[in-house]
Amino acid sequence: MRVVDVINKKKVGKALTQEEIEFFVQGYVKGEIPDYQIAALYMSIYFQGMNDEEIANLTMAYVNSGETIDLSGIEGVKVDKHSTGGVGDKISLIVIPLVASLGIPVAKMSGRGLGHTGGTIDKLEAIPGFKTTLSTEQFIANVNKHGMAVVGQTANLTPADKLTYALRDVTGTVDSIPLIASSIMSKKIASGADAIVLDVKVGSGAFMKSLEEAKRLAKCMVQIGKALNRRTIAIITDMNQPLGHEVGNANEIREVIDVLSGKGAEDETTVALTIATYMAIASGKYHDFQSTHAELLQVIESGRALEKLKDFISIQGGNPQIIDEPSKLPQAKNHIEIRSNQSGYISRIDAEHIGLVAMLLGAGRKKKEDSIDYAAGVTLLKKVGDYIHINEPLCILHTNLDTIETKVLEAYVFQDSKPDPIEYIHEVVK
Amino acid sequence: MRVVDVINKKKVGKALTQEEIEFFVQGYVKGEIPDYQIAALYMSIYFQGMNDEEIANLTMAYVNSGETIDLSGIEGVKVDKHSTGGVGDKISLIVIPLVASLGIPVAKMSGRGLGHTGGTIDKLEAIPGFKTTLSTEQFIANVNKHGMAVVGQTANLTPADKLTYALRDVTGTVDSIPLIASSIMSKKIASGADAIVLDVKVGSGAFMKSLEEAKRLAKCMVQIGKALNRRTIAIITDMNQPLGHEVGNANEIREVIDVLSGKGAEDETTVALTIATYMAIASGKYHDFQSTHAELLQVIESGRALEKLKDFISIQGGNPQIIDEPSKLPQAKNHIEIRSNQSGYISRIDAEHIGLVAMLLGAGRKKKEDSIDYAAGVTLLKKVGDYIHINEPLCILHTNLDTIETKVLEAYVFQDSKPDPIEYIHEVVK
Repeated sequence: MRVVDVINKKKVGKALTQEEIEFFVQGYVKGEIPDYQIAALYMSIYFQGMNDEEIANLTMAYVNSGETIDLSGIEGVKVDKHSTGGVGDKISLIVIPLVASLGIPVAKMSGRGLGHTGGTIDKLEAIPGFKTTLSTEQFIANVNKHGMAVVGQTANLTPADKLTYALRDVTGTVDSIPLIASSIMSKKIASGADAIVLDVKVGSGAFMKSLEEAKRLAKCMVQIGKALNRRTIAIITDMNQPLGHEVGNANEIREVIDVLSGKGAEDETTVALTIATYMAIASGKYHDFQSTHAELLQVIESGRALEKLKDFISIQGGNPQIIDEPSKLPQAKNHIEIRSNQSGYISRIDAEHIGLVAMLLGAGRKKKEDSIDYAAGVTLLKKVGDYIHINEPLCILHTNLDTIETKVLEAYVFQDSKPDPIEYIHEVVK
Repeated sequence: MRVVDVINKKKVGKALTQEEIEFFVQGYVKGEIPDYQIAALYMSIYFQGMNDEEIANLTMAYVNSGETIDLSGIEGVKVDKHSTGGVGDKISLIVIPLVASLGIPVAKMSGRGLGHTGGTIDKLEAIPGFKTTLSTEQFIANVNKHGMAVVGQTANLTPADKLTYALRDVTGTVDSIPLIASSIMSKKIASGADAIVLDVKVGSGAFMKSLEEAKRLAKCMVQIGKALNRRTIAIITDMNQPLGHEVGNANEIREVIDVLSGKGAEDETTVALTIATYMAIASGKYHDFQSTHAELLQVIESGRALEKLKDFISIQGGNPQIIDEPSKLPQAKNHIEIRSNQSGYISRIDAEHIGLVAMLLGAGRKKKEDSIDYAAGVTLLKKVGDYIHINEPLCILHTNLDTIETKVLEAYVFQDSKPDPIEYIHEVVK
């Protein structure tokens, strides 16, 4: 088989066979096929698309390119959850204890973040003592014993996806629905998921800007799930503003506590409960949306959700006191109140922009090697639809960096007693 | 004569003759004496000092090294004023119209600024249309016709001072009272002053940190004036916090208007009236401090001072409407309110620190080639001795630069009507 023939076949819009797909994926991973041929092939895929069978085959070729996690040692249906990414997205952290409260095993493999804030693993590490490095055996044992565990990805999963993604990033072939869908689904399948719930974000702060695009991606991923016998449900949720009130790491943990205490922001709570409900349904243990949703609400109201979060933190070595005393989470040195420069209803809060600010404050990594300041972030005091008066606080920036404000404040010295009056003229010499 | 002999003479503490002083000053300006010999000589002066006669001779040697301005075409005693430099120091701009109101000619040669904010010339150029480039003939004609004029320095005054100052800056010989005093006085004398009023700043924000040092410098300069037949008065004024409420350029012009309207800050008004009174006395036209001071107060209260400022601006091509409509002065895009992070009496406001912040906001030059943003600066809402509550506004930063605050505000869109409620969940695909 010659790569150039596969390229030409796709170029004229013909479907590739499973053999052809495995041929170029394996050849690329082994280094036998050069970058430029894969670049040409993926650009053909961008223009000509792929049918359901091709996409399923590409997904499995990615899965087969590396290690896979065997979660068969865990009893029950293992439901995984994935988000296409948003700002202030702490849904995973909320649904882990929530779904585990229903007796459904949650075995979650998560990543670190690059960009606005940390990923799920980074956010968890904002909790003093929390450990995310477990062997696969420990991980499985924890899920069997406690019903839940989260681990950072260590195994060499889907190397073909990593390699092709890096190439797509520099060759203008990222925004192809079949390529995005197979990339996401291959990682979930390699991680050992039996069922998958997808949180497809749509809006100005998401990769998918329009509902139509988001639906196409959602349908494509659900179709892959069907073809590969993984029950898959995609929920398209709003990312026209950051989710909830907190964007950062430690402050997002605080907001997770709020949501699980029943005091969460409306958007965050609505999305989290919807995702958790569909995870319960995807597990096969629950069937009806309304009654499952009601049961989850009851789990929160009874305090069981918060107890489960406390257990989750303790099991993985974290300090569970942060639940009752969130001040034990990392705190930034500087808190800068940003006041509105006008009055009116807030009609938009650009999520990417807020994410960029969070990164500049230290909450995210610009480069892979950067470290994260867990205490840094943004607290949004008002959200879209809220009325704000001029000079009313809009948000608070948390940072350990020196800003022009902190520089100004350093110039001042305060004391409790009134100082002596200053002599403006000290002396005249003539 | 050999330089090494002059060095050795000073090294052992002997006084240098006028010939010896003229020899090394002229030789250095001509490039006949190398830097290292002048460095060694000035270090000897640092340790051994100079007597009054030597200092007067050094001053005149600096004056004779370059051009001098002949102001004999102006009738009356020409009084010049000099400040050793402080943050928020807009005294020159206040005393020009004030002293001119008394019928005393004010012929002021001023410079640009390097550091926290602009100099007098830069601040004047913040006024739309204001011109500071006049020929010497125009300058003299303006003083004779209107009683006042300000011009940027163009003639090659005291080149020996410029050269030796640059060398002192890098050889640790700046902080020598005889060298500072002769440097300042030579510039005033070369500019054609008959009488000189010196504003010697003392405090944390000044070059002279202690009253004792300031007095030594003041006495030394007054002594030079006496030796060279220029009536000289030095007033030692406070620089333990910025002067007045405004630090910048256009905002300092606004504060000048306030002081000349009788609505100025207490420190600014006190220092300006004291300096103006001594300028009137130095001119020989006035003699008694109390009655002169009272007359100047009357000049302000009657509105004549403000009228004189308006004339001054018009004569030099500026827009006099800024007096009644200060909003016609350059305005910054961003105004950032800094609130106190504690309650208490303000016991200190580090002037240099506030100056640094003003420079970072765009109000000053880091390097000679930098341009100044006239609209940038700091407004101090509270001063030393004021009580402030936590979160109460302490100062306002004005800038056209993007700060993290302005970055945050860019994320928000506002509208007058309440937007439609957001759908958090757009669609479920299964």
